[in-house]
Amino acid sequence: MLDTPNEQKTQLSELGEFALINRLTSSIELKNDSSLTGVGDDAAIIDHGKNETLISKDLLIEGVHFDLAYVPLKHLGYKAVVVNISDIYAMNGTPSQVLVGVAVSSRFPVEALDEIYEGMLLACKRYGVDLVGGDTTTSTSGLLLSVTAVGYVKKGEAVKRSGSAPTDLLVVTGDLGAAYMGLQVLEREKVAFKSNPNLQPELQGHEYVLERQLKPEARKDISDLLKSLKVKPSSMIDISDGLSSEIMHLCKGSSLGCTIYEDKIPMDPQMMRLAEEFGINPITAVLNGGEDYELLFTISIEDYDKIKHNPSLTAIGHITEDKPIQLVTKAGQAIELEAQGWTSFQEG
Amino acid sequence: MLDTPNEQKTQLSELGEFALINRLTSSIELKNDSSLTGVGDDAAIIDHGKNETLISKDLLIEGVHFDLAYVPLKHLGYKAVVVNISDIYAMNGTPSQVLVGVAVSSRFPVEALDEIYEGMLLACKRYGVDLVGGDTTTSTSGLLLSVTAVGYVKKGEAVKRSGSAPTDLLVVTGDLGAAYMGLQVLEREKVAFKSNPNLQPELQGHEYVLERQLKPEARKDISDLLKSLKVKPSSMIDISDGLSSEIMHLCKGSSLGCTIYEDKIPMDPQMMRLAEEFGINPITAVLNGGEDYELLFTISIEDYDKIKHNPSLTAIGHITEDKPIQLVTKAGQAIELEAQGWTSFQEG
Repeated sequence: MLDTPNEQKTQLSELGEFALINRLTSSIELKNDSSLTGVGDDAAIIDHGKNETLISKDLLIEGVHFDLAYVPLKHLGYKAVVVNISDIYAMNGTPSQVLVGVAVSSRFPVEALDEIYEGMLLACKRYGVDLVGGDTTTSTSGLLLSVTAVGYVKKGEAVKRSGSAPTDLLVVTGDLGAAYMGLQVLEREKVAFKSNPNLQPELQGHEYVLERQLKPEARKDISDLLKSLKVKPSSMIDISDGLSSEIMHLCKGSSLGCTIYEDKIPMDPQMMRLAEEFGINPITAVLNGGEDYELLFTISIEDYDKIKHNPSLTAIGHITEDKPIQLVTKAGQAIELEAQGWTSFQEG
Repeated sequence: MLDTPNEQKTQLSELGEFALINRLTSSIELKNDSSLTGVGDDAAIIDHGKNETLISKDLLIEGVHFDLAYVPLKHLGYKAVVVNISDIYAMNGTPSQVLVGVAVSSRFPVEALDEIYEGMLLACKRYGVDLVGGDTTTSTSGLLLSVTAVGYVKKGEAVKRSGSAPTDLLVVTGDLGAAYMGLQVLEREKVAFKSNPNLQPELQGHEYVLERQLKPEARKDISDLLKSLKVKPSSMIDISDGLSSEIMHLCKGSSLGCTIYEDKIPMDPQMMRLAEEFGINPITAVLNGGEDYELLFTISIEDYDKIKHNPSLTAIGHITEDKPIQLVTKAGQAIELEAQGWTSFQEG
């Protein structure tokens, strides 16, 4: 498989996602004037005249990112589009097009692809984007979706992962951790169904967390909201891998640290109740769960008054000159956070 | 798996690629003014000011598009980029960026990804494009590459699959069928190696066809060549699935037919010799083999004198008012051509 089979082989599981990305992309140099930014942010920025084009790309793989035992195909198509255009919003941009790649094995009938496309087109309609291309092919096993989202932003208005300054406030939209608890509910019902296929799934009362997991929405509203509040974020990212990883990306982007406060983090009561039921600390769902597709951004401390009463926005901490990225727990203890991202290579 | 499990299920193998794509994309409507064209061409055209942005997307899947028993990973990375930017050239554009998605199972060490990236970056360098983003993730089985290429073209200069007129000439670049014969050689050596692992592969004398299969190049030179000859193609496509499919796309794009002549089709002597050795009719390799990544385009018959002595360009037939797409064999017999594209759902 390798040209040099006798050389040292590092297992992927030894590295983890972020070290691997660094390794693979460190030698990349941008050569075209139009490539304003490349790898290392939610989307690439490309200069094409009066606006800047934004492009993002994500893969969703059966058995890794979703389990068809409990994810309806229409929802899957919807989610595949949403998670990509979320990357465009995270750059302060407006999504305008998507390209979709679908690979399926022969176990899928045509109607399965119909449903996936139906979901993708529903998301396109909801967010005002056009599906402009892609590729459909066979796979030897399972289903794979690859979506590329294209958007635009006025010249100079893209908000990157870098750009924050010491004393900037860290702000999140919505609430966090619910998508992860939705996944726990689905996993529990799957196990119950396996042991007794006649059982009806117990999903009632869990609608919010299930919707957050199965049919997430991207924060289309935040760019306009911030404009109306006259606030310009200094850096921004969407929360796909969990708050912990995303905060690290922002801090790394500006070579700074931060302190966040557990008691400030917005959580939905249904999520907290379920966390208790499952014996999971809610802060763990928030930090490491992911898939919330909320936005995390930094603003100047002088803008705090403009956002403090807005129900969609919550300040959860601040950027610091010092490097540690720390969480102050409800008990007042300061804990240093560690990177997560995927580590599923161990399982595969 | 389906929301409506008791409804009719059409097997993918019943449809074939082109019918499936039609089915999946027929309900798509473009809503944004900037989406100049969407699904149905080599790349989408997006208006972003003074230029038009071109975006294309392709998936390459282990066991479907390549076999790691004989494809070096570096070549695979190179090819994944080349086949995508070939789509940009096929629109008369200039590729400028790529985004790459890589999904791998745990059987791949980090060095395997290094090699894939090395190949991708080599192609980027060769073609002057920047790798600006992507996604790296795990897969439950095998290797998958998903590449999105971005390019640009001066407003109004994109050449689509539609646009040809009756009496237009069909022109191909380079020679055809060699990549397919390269694949036959590799398959033969794989079988020989399986029955006797001590055998050295017999690849000598087959360098040209092997290079065409393992390390194809995109026709970066044709756009400039045509400009210097003062020829503007009326329609254009790259030859990825075999001449037969691509001709059908061009004819369908303009609702016309065509006649091509077997004795006009450019073939390399090494390819023809091997075809004889394998007992394959060379015209079959040309029509159904694919992966040549040459360009097929139509020009006004008035431009024939400008191209007729150019060694890179060969007129192989002409567009007709009548619908049949036919090949006139060396024996003077007229045969109607049929669509190919992938049909690998039967196997998977």
